[in-house]
Amino acid sequence: MYGYQGQVLRVNLTKGVCTVEALDEAKAKKFVGGRGLGTKMFVDEVSPNVDALSEANKLFIVTGPLTGTPTPTGGRYMVITKSPLTGTIASSNSGGYWGPELKFAGYDAIIVEGKSEKPVYLMIEDEKVEIRDAAHIWGKVVSETTDILKNEVPEKSRVLTIGPAGEKLSKMAAIMNDKDRAAGRSGVGAVMGSKNLKAITVRGSKKVEVADAEILKEVVKDCNAKIRENGVTGQGLPTYGTAVLVNIINENGVFPVNNFQTSQFDRAEELSGETLTEKYLVRKDPCYRCPIACGRYCKVDDIEGGGPEYETIWAFGGDCGVSDMGSVIKANHWCNEMGLDTITAGATIAAAMELYQKGYIKDSELDGLSLEFGNNEAVVEWTKRMGMREGFGDKMADGSYRLADSYGVPELSMTVKKQELPAYDPRGIQGQGLQYATSNRGGCHVRGYMISPEILGLPEKLDRFTLEGKAGWVKIFQDLTAFIDASGLCLFTSFAMGAGDYASMINGVIGTEWTAEDILLAGERIWNIERIFNLAAGIDSSQDTLPKRLLEDPIEDGPSKGNVARLSELLPEYYELRGWGADGIPTQARKDVLGL
Amino acid sequence: MYGYQGQVLRVNLTKGVCTVEALDEAKAKKFVGGRGLGTKMFVDEVSPNVDALSEANKLFIVTGPLTGTPTPTGGRYMVITKSPLTGTIASSNSGGYWGPELKFAGYDAIIVEGKSEKPVYLMIEDEKVEIRDAAHIWGKVVSETTDILKNEVPEKSRVLTIGPAGEKLSKMAAIMNDKDRAAGRSGVGAVMGSKNLKAITVRGSKKVEVADAEILKEVVKDCNAKIRENGVTGQGLPTYGTAVLVNIINENGVFPVNNFQTSQFDRAEELSGETLTEKYLVRKDPCYRCPIACGRYCKVDDIEGGGPEYETIWAFGGDCGVSDMGSVIKANHWCNEMGLDTITAGATIAAAMELYQKGYIKDSELDGLSLEFGNNEAVVEWTKRMGMREGFGDKMADGSYRLADSYGVPELSMTVKKQELPAYDPRGIQGQGLQYATSNRGGCHVRGYMISPEILGLPEKLDRFTLEGKAGWVKIFQDLTAFIDASGLCLFTSFAMGAGDYASMINGVIGTEWTAEDILLAGERIWNIERIFNLAAGIDSSQDTLPKRLLEDPIEDGPSKGNVARLSELLPEYYELRGWGADGIPTQARKDVLGL
Repeated sequence: MYGYQGQVLRVNLTKGVCTVEALDEAKAKKFVGGRGLGTKMFVDEVSPNVDALSEANKLFIVTGPLTGTPTPTGGRYMVITKSPLTGTIASSNSGGYWGPELKFAGYDAIIVEGKSEKPVYLMIEDEKVEIRDAAHIWGKVVSETTDILKNEVPEKSRVLTIGPAGEKLSKMAAIMNDKDRAAGRSGVGAVMGSKNLKAITVRGSKKVEVADAEILKEVVKDCNAKIRENGVTGQGLPTYGTAVLVNIINENGVFPVNNFQTSQFDRAEELSGETLTEKYLVRKDPCYRCPIACGRYCKVDDIEGGGPEYETIWAFGGDCGVSDMGSVIKANHWCNEMGLDTITAGATIAAAMELYQKGYIKDSELDGLSLEFGNNEAVVEWTKRMGMREGFGDKMADGSYRLADSYGVPELSMTVKKQELPAYDPRGIQGQGLQYATSNRGGCHVRGYMISPEILGLPEKLDRFTLEGKAGWVKIFQDLTAFIDASGLCLFTSFAMGAGDYASMINGVIGTEWTAEDILLAGERIWNIERIFNLAAGIDSSQDTLPKRLLEDPIEDGPSKGNVARLSELLPEYYELRGWGADGIPTQARKDVLGL
Repeated sequence: MYGYQGQVLRVNLTKGVCTVEALDEAKAKKFVGGRGLGTKMFVDEVSPNVDALSEANKLFIVTGPLTGTPTPTGGRYMVITKSPLTGTIASSNSGGYWGPELKFAGYDAIIVEGKSEKPVYLMIEDEKVEIRDAAHIWGKVVSETTDILKNEVPEKSRVLTIGPAGEKLSKMAAIMNDKDRAAGRSGVGAVMGSKNLKAITVRGSKKVEVADAEILKEVVKDCNAKIRENGVTGQGLPTYGTAVLVNIINENGVFPVNNFQTSQFDRAEELSGETLTEKYLVRKDPCYRCPIACGRYCKVDDIEGGGPEYETIWAFGGDCGVSDMGSVIKANHWCNEMGLDTITAGATIAAAMELYQKGYIKDSELDGLSLEFGNNEAVVEWTKRMGMREGFGDKMADGSYRLADSYGVPELSMTVKKQELPAYDPRGIQGQGLQYATSNRGGCHVRGYMISPEILGLPEKLDRFTLEGKAGWVKIFQDLTAFIDASGLCLFTSFAMGAGDYASMINGVIGTEWTAEDILLAGERIWNIERIFNLAAGIDSSQDTLPKRLLEDPIEDGPSKGNVARLSELLPEYYELRGWGADGIPTQARKDVLGL
C-alpha cells in the first residue's frame, strides 16, 4: 500500500516486549493516518473512561501517508492519547525530523502501552528495537537528554523525549523532538512520563514508496508554486516567522493582554516579528522538506535555540503584560528544556498574575518571586519552577483551570474544556469563538484556524463581527484541518492550498482517486470519532462554551470595542450543520453517511 | 567605530603566543573589511614572493562590518593568504555561523603567523584565548573533529577546521566551518595545515553596535522586500537551491561536459534542482540571518549532510559525464569530510578522465579504480583518495594543472592561473570569459558573476554572444563584488540589490554617508591592491588568459554552437577601462584616484 510502510510497532512496557503488527489497511484508507487513523486505533483499544495517567491509558504515535514523502511540509507525526489536562481525546502534532525518520525505519505508528517499572527509553534502528535503561537521563532537560542519547544510539538518529515536566506528570507537559519541536498541547508528555518512558530514538534506512512519482512531481511543483506565491506562506511567514501576526492581531484589537482583561497592547511593537528579526534572529530553522521555513532560531544573552512562535510570544508577552522579547525568548527556552506547552505555561502564569492581582494568591505562597503583571523575570522563573514543580510552581504545573478552581474562581482561567485559549480574543472574531468552544481538544487555534478568513482574508475576507455563515465556515475549517492533520502535512500549507490540492497529493502518493469532497468527508469522519469519544468520556455539549468573561464582558476599548462572543447564537446552527442533535450528539443518520 | 569590534587577534604559532591589537580604523574605513581590509593588512605584512606553504606566509581570517549585524545574509568571513594553488592572493569566503561568532567574541580578524611544532587548535571564548594540543583530532575528518571539539570547548562554540586534505597540504584543501560550509577555493586549507593548525573554535557574548538602529531597521526591511520580490532570490534559490541553475545553464548550451569537451548534457534533468528537491532534499539549511536560504541538506542511502551546490553538481556530474545525483551527493559529502574544494576536486577528476581517455594516464597507475567518464563510483572514490593522498589520488591532490603538466599536456587542464574553471562554458558567455581571465584568484565565477546579466537577465538582459559593453560590465561586476565580499554580506544579495542598497546598509551600520559611487570606488580599490600583489608575485598579464580549448575550438553543437571565447578582443578595452596600461599594470594616475 503506497504511502504507508504497513507496520505498527507495539511496545508493551509492563512486559518489556516489542512486537510488530501489520497495519490495518482498511482502517488506514478510511481514516487516512495521523490524527485520523491514530484516533480510530486508539478508540478501538482504550476505554473513554480510562484514567489518563494510569497504566491502562495508551500512547499512539502515528505518522500520515504523506510523512516522509516529497510533498511540501510532509514531515509531521501526531500523538494520540487521552488527555490528562482536558479528559478529551488528545491529538498533538509536531514537525521537525523525527516523524519522517520513523517512516524510514519502516513503521507507520508506535503504540506504547503499560508502564515500565523503572525509567526506560526506546531505541529503534530499522528492524532493531530495544527497550533500554534510562536511569542516566531521567531528570535531565531536553537538550542534555538529546545530546547524551545521540552519543549512545546509531549515528544520525532522531530523538523524541520528555523533559522534567513530563516525568513529574505536569498536565501541561509536551513531548519534544529534535530538541525544540513539540507535540505541545493537552499534556501528552505527562502520559509518556506516567509510563516511565523518557525517550524514543529512531534511525531508518528505508524509503516511502509512492503510487505515481511522475504525477506527484507535477503536483508538488504546482503546490510549491502556490505556497511561494501566497502572501502568508510566500512572504509573511518566511520573513518574520509566525511572529508576523503580533502587529496584525494587535491592530485588530484582539491581542489579549493581562489574562484577557484588555485586548490591545500598547507595547506590541516590541514583541513583533519585525523586532524579533531585527534583534534576536540567528537563522531560519525549517522542518523536514518545508518550503515555508517559518521556524526561527534566536539568541539572547547566552540563551539560544528554536522559536519563539507567535503564540508563545503572546502567552509570555502580552498575556502577562510583558513586552521584553528577551524574557519571552528565555521563557520559551525553558519550556523547550523542561518540555512544557508554551501556550498553557504562559497563560497559566497570566492567570496566576490575575489571581495575585485580585488578592487570591498571597505573597506568602511565592517564595519571594513576583507574580505581578509586566514582570520580566517572573515569566522566566515561573516557567522553570512549573517545569520542576518547585514551590508554588508545583501548584501551577497542572494549568490555570485547576489553579483558579483551587481558589474558588475557575472563571479566571481562560480555558475551554480546561485547556488554555491561544492568542486571539474571540470577542472580536466570532467564528473563532465558535471554533474554540467546539474544538475537540479544548481551547485551541489549530483545529480550525478562523483567523485565516476573519483576519487574514484567506481564502476570502469575512466580516469578523458578524455571525452569518460562520457556523458553516467553522465546520469546513475543522474538517479540512482534521484531514491535513491526518495526512502528515503542516496546517500552514492551507493558507495557500485547498481541499483539491490535498486530494491531488494524496492521490499521487496513495494511488487513490479522491476528490475535494472526499477530503472534507474524511475530515468530518475524524471530527466525529473524536466527538463520540469525548461524549463517552463524559464531555458533553455543556462544555462547548467559553470563559464567562468572553461571553459577558464586552471589550472595553480599541477596534473591537463593545463586542462579546455571541456563542449561543452560533451553536444551534453549528450542531445542525454537523448533523448532530440539539444536544450536540451525532445523529445515527449522519453516522451512517460517514460510515461510523 | 560602529560595525567593527576594534580588535584583531594575532596568533603566533611559532612562539605559541596570542596578542590582541587595536584595529587600524583608517585602514578599515578605506578598505571596508573582509576581502578588502584583509588583503590590505596581508600585503602590508607579507612579501609577495613568500612560499605559500612556508612558515613566512600568514593566514588572515577577517569579518566585514556587516558580519553579525541584522543585515540580510550578514554572516560571512573571508580567508586571505597567498594561495599555494595559484600563487596569487587568495581570498576565500564562507557563510554559516562561525564568522558572526568571531565578531561576538570581540574580534574583527585573526592573524595566524608562524608554525606550530606539533598540531594545535585555537580555543576562543571572548577574552579567553588558548592554543591547545590537537594530537587527538589530527587526521580526523571534519564532522568527527567538530563533534569531538564541541565536547571539550565552551557550549555552543562554532568550529572552523581543516580535514585530512589540509593536513596533507593538498593545494585544493578548503577551510571548513559549521561542518559543511567552506572557504573553499585556492587551497587556503593547505596554508592552515602547513602551520599545524587544525581548528579554531569560537564562542562570544558581545553584540555588534550599529550607528543608527532605527534607520538600519528601515533599510533592512526594504532590502528584505527586494530579496523576496526578486525571481532568483525570492523563488529560484529558495525553492531549488543553487541547483536551480542546472537546467537553465544546460538549456543555453554552456554546461561543460567531459572536461569541457562538449557543452550540453543530455542527462542534465537527472542533475537538476527539481530532481534534487524531489528525491534527496531533507531540508533547507540556511546561513546566519539569511532570508534566501539557498543552502540544502540532502540524504542518499546512509550519507547525509549539507549541499550539494550547483557548481559541485556540475563538477562531479556533467564535467565527469556522470548523471547519478546520489554519487554527486556522496562525492560532495567526502569533500566536506576531507576538506576539499568541490570545484577543483571534481574538475581535477574530469581532467584526469580526459588524460585517461587520451592515453596519458595508464590503468597500471590506478590500483583498479576507473577513470572513465561517466563512472559513478569513480567520482566518489577518487574524491576520498585525493583527500587522503592515497595511490594516484596523491598525484591528483594538487589539482588538474600540475597533473596535466606532469604528462606534458597542461592545456588539458581547464584552469586560469592554475585554478579550475567553474560550471559555465565562456565560449557561449563572452563577458564571463573576460571575467574568468582577469579574476585575481584565477578561474572563478564569484569575482564578477556575469551569468547574472548574460544568462539570467539581472539587472538587465545582455546578448551573451556579443562583445559590446562587456568590458565595462565586467569591471562594474568585479568592483561591486569586491565590495560585497569586503562588507560581510553574501554575493547572492546582488541579484536583488544594487550599489545604492549596499551604501544604505553600510551607512546604517558604520554611520558613513557613502553613495553608490563610493561603493564601486571602494571595490575598485580592493581589486587594484589584489592586482598589484599578484603582479609583484610574478603573475603578469600573460596569465590573463583562458585554456587553449576555449580560445580556439568552437563549441560543436547546441545553442552556443560555433563560438569561441573572444578574449583578445576584450582585454585591451578592459585594461583601458581599469586605467591600466596595455601591459595590464595599474597606472600611477589611476592609483592616485584610488588613493593607493
